[in-house]
Amino acid sequence: MSSILVIGTVAFDSVKTPFGEAPEVLGGSATFFAMAARLFTRVRLVAIVGKDFPSHHLKMFEENGIDLQGLVRSEGDTFRWKGEYEENMNVRHTLETHFNVLEDFQADLPDDYRNTPYVFLANINPDLQMKVLNQLTSPKLICCDTMNLWIINQRKDLEEVLKRVDFFIISEEEAQMLTQDHNIVRSAREILKLGRFALIIKRGGYGAILFTQQDEVFAIPAYPLENVVDPTGAGDTFAGGFTGYLASRDRLDLETVQKAMVFGNITASFAVEGFSVDKLIALTREKVRDRLSDFLRMTHLAPVVANVE
Amino acid sequence: MSSILVIGTVAFDSVKTPFGEAPEVLGGSATFFAMAARLFTRVRLVAIVGKDFPSHHLKMFEENGIDLQGLVRSEGDTFRWKGEYEENMNVRHTLETHFNVLEDFQADLPDDYRNTPYVFLANINPDLQMKVLNQLTSPKLICCDTMNLWIINQRKDLEEVLKRVDFFIISEEEAQMLTQDHNIVRSAREILKLGRFALIIKRGGYGAILFTQQDEVFAIPAYPLENVVDPTGAGDTFAGGFTGYLASRDRLDLETVQKAMVFGNITASFAVEGFSVDKLIALTREKVRDRLSDFLRMTHLAPVVANVE
Repeated sequence: MSSILVIGTVAFDSVKTPFGEAPEVLGGSATFFAMAARLFTRVRLVAIVGKDFPSHHLKMFEENGIDLQGLVRSEGDTFRWKGEYEENMNVRHTLETHFNVLEDFQADLPDDYRNTPYVFLANINPDLQMKVLNQLTSPKLICCDTMNLWIINQRKDLEEVLKRVDFFIISEEEAQMLTQDHNIVRSAREILKLGRFALIIKRGGYGAILFTQQDEVFAIPAYPLENVVDPTGAGDTFAGGFTGYLASRDRLDLETVQKAMVFGNITASFAVEGFSVDKLIALTREKVRDRLSDFLRMTHLAPVVANVE
Repeated sequence: MSSILVIGTVAFDSVKTPFGEAPEVLGGSATFFAMAARLFTRVRLVAIVGKDFPSHHLKMFEENGIDLQGLVRSEGDTFRWKGEYEENMNVRHTLETHFNVLEDFQADLPDDYRNTPYVFLANINPDLQMKVLNQLTSPKLICCDTMNLWIINQRKDLEEVLKRVDFFIISEEEAQMLTQDHNIVRSAREILKLGRFALIIKRGGYGAILFTQQDEVFAIPAYPLENVVDPTGAGDTFAGGFTGYLASRDRLDLETVQKAMVFGNITASFAVEGFSVDKLIALTREKVRDRLSDFLRMTHLAPVVANVE
């Protein structure tokens, strides 16, 4: 069985949505990613938490098969994020960010981790993403996310990382911010120039779209959900399903990549139906597969006709 | 060959987009609809214009095979609309609306038109939509659009019309306005209670989604476009491709409806690449079919596997 290393944040989130509030719940980019990817493959978590991080969260990770050898427990407080969503849940506002122990994080990999073939550089300081890259001996696939903060404040560092990744997975707002262009096709073309990667742009409640260096495009709508409780972590969960599926198949042809996008999409659709990782804890590969069948029925012409009249 | 009757507006639009400006160009809901639907079937236009409406526009309609027997030429000025789009072209602002000759429009159908089997009630006062319905002898399929103005000011009249239509085709903003709910699934469920129709919600640059009374859902992304010049009329063009395709097939099973959505989607993708109906004039069914093949390749897993592992 293949394995994935993820570096990112493990955090306490305080979230307010039109549906309700969740104070100080488990969050962070690496958390959501790991809880999705573990459905498909072994996950090695590289992150830091503070002394305030409760043991039941650690136990939850372990019970879900997530390897915590790379999780540093430090003095100080765990990273905290506070945000609020508008009535239209595609729009969110960050109210507070407290880096806390993240400031001192060194991202030194355990020896066992250095030969991990699949890697996800979740949203975290690009300096740390690069440090992880430099410790890997034989990566097979490197996927990467980022956020507005690093695009604005550490663009050069981010661009150095991007030269070495295979998939860059960002939100539509981040793509617009990177290129100052609202048109998704032009924006994608500009971003593709920053490396040799394929680009996946996540469009919140509207789905996701892939652009490759070979001018291939693949677009999927989101799974239509009746109860969106909290979109936090949807993008990380998408990346977890996507990278997890690729690792489980250990193939990278276009067809497998397309299927991985659908798996990422469906996995993310569960995450947003609850606060924190509530819905991911209960999730199984069977439930993902059932919803995936629904999704294909809802999005594919049946039968797909080669010659539509 | 089947035929479609459309009632709606023929207008002068003055449009400003981030791409440029087009003052006093041919527009209106019936104009865009007719110019799309004529690719698939015969179109009968029911609308009113003023004495200021130039003969070259009439000639253009005629050259495109559109039957103008139902187009009233009146004293007074043609309906005018002025609008502006934000950098994100999914957001638009109406700056001016001058109804002019529309105020006196009676929507009396020529005798020849009364037995038209396919009908599109484009965006216009619901009183006029109802007047047309009452003159039809044997409609086979009735599709209907509306806008914020009628939802706010003439909701009761609109709801009477909706009891008699087969497809209600509106934008996501209009769906939200009708139900005061931002969730598209809940919103759709509420709207479906207003009649026996199937509902299509248009999501601008994000595609479209169908909801039926039988709980079927079909979602498609938009065709990814590099040059969106002017989104005006995209929704009417979608409806024209959709209804036109259905009329040309003269079938209403789910599979045909799904294909009609894809045809509507693709036809609309051309409309937004130019101002007014510029790109629709030059459009052929062959060009639509070529882009449709691209679209299927960009949106369908190839091969679609029944048992995705």
